[in-house]
Amino acid sequence: MKLSLAEPKYLKDSISIISELVNEARFKINSDAIELIAMDPANVAMIIFKLLSSSFVEYNIKEPVDVAINLTNLKQILRRASPSDTITLELEESKLKITFKGATTRTFFLPIIDIEDKEQKVPELNFGLSIQTASDMLIQAIDDVDIIGESVAFLAEPSKLTIQAEGDLSKARIEITEGENAKFSAHTKEAMKSKYSIEYLKKMVVAGKLAPNVVVHFNKDYPLKLDYKIVDKMNLSFILAPRVEND
Amino acid sequence: MKLSLAEPKYLKDSISIISELVNEARFKINSDAIELIAMDPANVAMIIFKLLSSSFVEYNIKEPVDVAINLTNLKQILRRASPSDTITLELEESKLKITFKGATTRTFFLPIIDIEDKEQKVPELNFGLSIQTASDMLIQAIDDVDIIGESVAFLAEPSKLTIQAEGDLSKARIEITEGENAKFSAHTKEAMKSKYSIEYLKKMVVAGKLAPNVVVHFNKDYPLKLDYKIVDKMNLSFILAPRVEND
Amino acid sequence: MKLSLAEPKYLKDSISIISELVNEARFKINSDAIELIAMDPANVAMIIFKLLSSSFVEYNIKEPVDVAINLTNLKQILRRASPSDTITLELEESKLKITFKGATTRTFFLPIIDIEDKEQKVPELNFGLSIQTASDMLIQAIDDVDIIGESVAFLAEPSKLTIQAEGDLSKARIEITEGENAKFSAHTKEAMKSKYSIEYLKKMVVAGKLAPNVVVHFNKDYPLKLDYKIVDKMNLSFILAPRVEND
Repeated sequence: MKLSLAEPKYLKDSISIISELVNEARFKINSDAIELIAMDPANVAMIIFKLLSSSFVEYNIKEPVDVAINLTNLKQILRRASPSDTITLELEESKLKITFKGATTRTFFLPIIDIEDKEQKVPELNFGLSIQTASDMLIQAIDDVDIIGESVAFLAEPSKLTIQAEGDLSKARIEITEGENAKFSAHTKEAMKSKYSIEYLKKMVVAGKLAPNVVVHFNKDYPLKLDYKIVDKMNLSFILAPRVEND
Repeated sequence: MKLSLAEPKYLKDSISIISELVNEARFKINSDAIELIAMDPANVAMIIFKLLSSSFVEYNIKEPVDVAINLTNLKQILRRASPSDTITLELEESKLKITFKGATTRTFFLPIIDIEDKEQKVPELNFGLSIQTASDMLIQAIDDVDIIGESVAFLAEPSKLTIQAEGDLSKARIEITEGENAKFSAHTKEAMKSKYSIEYLKKMVVAGKLAPNVVVHFNKDYPLKLDYKIVDKMNLSFILAPRVEND
Repeated sequence: MKLSLAEPKYLKDSISIISELVNEARFKINSDAIELIAMDPANVAMIIFKLLSSSFVEYNIKEPVDVAINLTNLKQILRRASPSDTITLELEESKLKITFKGATTRTFFLPIIDIEDKEQKVPELNFGLSIQTASDMLIQAIDDVDIIGESVAFLAEPSKLTIQAEGDLSKARIEITEGENAKFSAHTKEAMKSKYSIEYLKKMVVAGKLAPNVVVHFNKDYPLKLDYKIVDKMNLSFILAPRVEND
């Protein structure tokens, strides 16, 4: 196996984001892509990551292979890549060999670990509403509600998404209306509301630095899904379980 | 009541500075301005803040109103304003409603609190010397003496202001002489000296990011006053009690 | 004595770097230079610093003088210098008087201390290999191995320097080959290897912000020497004892 990336960013930033949610994970490497599907330890969030073979300058693989890695260690190593370095991934001595080629050649070896969990499958979900909006707008909204509380409600009305949080006495409300910055695809005319953890959302929306737009899917008291895509390069999605509260 | 600001900076930065000295305060809102006069909990510093109605793009108020607010919470909310947002202040459901209008509309509600203290009045003071100088020069001088000790002496001689601190063995001395960068208005020919807390001064001089110049008033063993003004927009002044030491 | 520098950088940054290794030190000031030779408290590292008289705009000294100073305090004061300030060093009232002249005149007095240790001498060393390379490349290599372990091995083969660290299961290896960015002067054809503390090296290689190039000298299980030089201005060198491990 020999895989070379000329733009470290998509691997580097994705792993940095994913490692905030999952500590260890299994990569499935086949002729199409490097894929990762993982649940966070609390079983609240699923991460679905795909780095397409078309984003590589060299993509040489004989047969599909599974490689489980400590993501914190991998993040530390990838952080050392300069934006102009070419990153090469290989398997050697039952380790993952990562080479950065720039003015010098720098090589890191990372142990392949055993993960006992069963293979994760992406659940089939039926969303009532999908909204494509600017990634920055979602980051701003989550940072806004973060000063008020621990959970945030997503409320959909026709042509309007409201993101709001209530503290003991304070309150924050962000309204995103259909228009230039937000395209709505409603699959129902009902109003719907669902609550999610702000702590988890904060870790997810930083994926906005990888893709300028995000598609937000949700439904009434239902999981939320965020999709960040760069055509022909990568997909990074998050599924977040709703918070069910008595209120 | 409906008050709208097109430049968030004067409200945002002022509240951020004031909240380092006072946790809760009462705003008096009348047809001329939003005003705040407050003492810090240790009764060492007074803050006098006025945001003039002429700095607003909309200033709609029927009758004067008092609004007491937790400044730390207000600061957290105002921090979320982008420089290009229009900020609107309203009273709704006995809360302060703060709206940021930019690409989206973001609304925050902050509880109005009860403050039991009596109304503060600005004392009449007779200063021996007033010096107008660059705000940055005062920030630099206070940061200089901060590495030496806890209190700083202001010494005035005709045409020269000396700011100095003495530690056990170390010493720092900054001399500001009358000239291009410092205009002196002496009301006495006597030399005068007074000492102040560096910790308090550090929190006050950051107001230099709001106004390029500051007027420093003091007298022999007497309170210090710092005035930061932006014509037709805002005034932010601080009065600091002297430190009387046996030396 | 009156010594004035128009470029604060060489004094300011050098003292900042040295103070991370040594807390107190004696400066020997003579007609040629200000010199400092000091060992760190653990006797693992020696620092050799020379600020040449030719880097001063005024260099007035009647007879050689020794001045021992707390470097942490000196660093704190020098940090207050703006890049455009002229720094003047004088002796007054058995204190070191440091004056910054810019828009204002700012003066600091620092006590001269007693140091009881004997005078340090630079040892004579016989290095097997000397490599001149870019300072940034060495910073990068040390930061790379820092994520893997506590000690780093320097390995020399003809025309190749390998810097590597091994953790329990991870490994990092940086190869610097003779060429445009690295000039080798070998005094032996033998391969040689020696290990050093990464913690110490991290404090030393930051001297790369003072000089674009560094000369690395070492030998088999032998001290390492790093030389940072700015012609006619300053020399800053470090000698680091090897780590002898049973492996």
